[in-house]
Amino acid sequence: MLGAIDHTGIAVASLDESIPFYRDVLKLPLVHRETLTEQGVEAVLFDVGDSHIELFAPLGPETSTARFLDKHGPGLHHLAYRVDDIEATLATLAAAGVWLIDTKPRVGIRGSRVAFLHPSATGGVLTELVEGRPSG
Amino acid sequence: MLGAIDHTGIAVASLDESIPFYRDVLKLPLVHRETLTEQGVEAVLFDVGDSHIELFAPLGPETSTARFLDKHGPGLHHLAYRVDDIEATLATLAAAGVWLIDTKPRVGIRGSRVAFLHPSATGGVLTELVEGRPSG
Repeated sequence: MLGAIDHTGIAVASLDESIPFYRDVLKLPLVHRETLTEQGVEAVLFDVGDSHIELFAPLGPETSTARFLDKHGPGLHHLAYRVDDIEATLATLAAAGVWLIDTKPRVGIRGSRVAFLHPSATGGVLTELVEGRPSG
Repeated sequence: MLGAIDHTGIAVASLDESIPFYRDVLKLPLVHRETLTEQGVEAVLFDVGDSHIELFAPLGPETSTARFLDKHGPGLHHLAYRVDDIEATLATLAAAGVWLIDTKPRVGIRGSRVAFLHPSATGGVLTELVEGRPSG
């Protein structure tokens, strides 16, 4: 059902302050940068193996990411799995009684189709499904 | 320098209560279970693609994992990257001024060689290096 870790999402206060560690010290290729207005973040992707590290920063103080940073500080935020068929996966999880934040996919970074499971359903981990491997 | 995401580490209060979601709902193969006395945890690994999900629970109330759970509750705890040569990677990171928790590798799960970078060096993410791909 789950093909791989698509990415690990890391909340940061500032992309420009956080990018250098990943790009220049860990030497991960920065492959994408995008403003996701609906999610209230600007995000970047670094390639690592067949997966990605996603850093994202809030677009403003009223966003959920800003509230996360206020409460927890910067750090690990969510874990995303790659799936072949996101509707089928959501249907299977719903049938198993898993609490879904998104019952239907929405558009994620690089035009991917994504949906989140509620952390209460997963033992405290905000879990995302990502359909396909975004190109680009 | 970093080959892939080796695993994402998730702190849980109880392995036996947390395993069923990953094994039976997400259908991830549970491939390993080990008590790591030095780290104060019991841990399990699930395969997902070329990476793993690591769930670990504290062996007792005086462990760092128990303190993490008291402070944060269960959830994402650390992010581990696979490296080919852990000593060389540590030397490169030390030369770049990265604050290392472990300046020399120690034994991790399944006999792997591991070292942790301090979260202060990485923008709040407890980061682990894992040499090679543990067999088994």
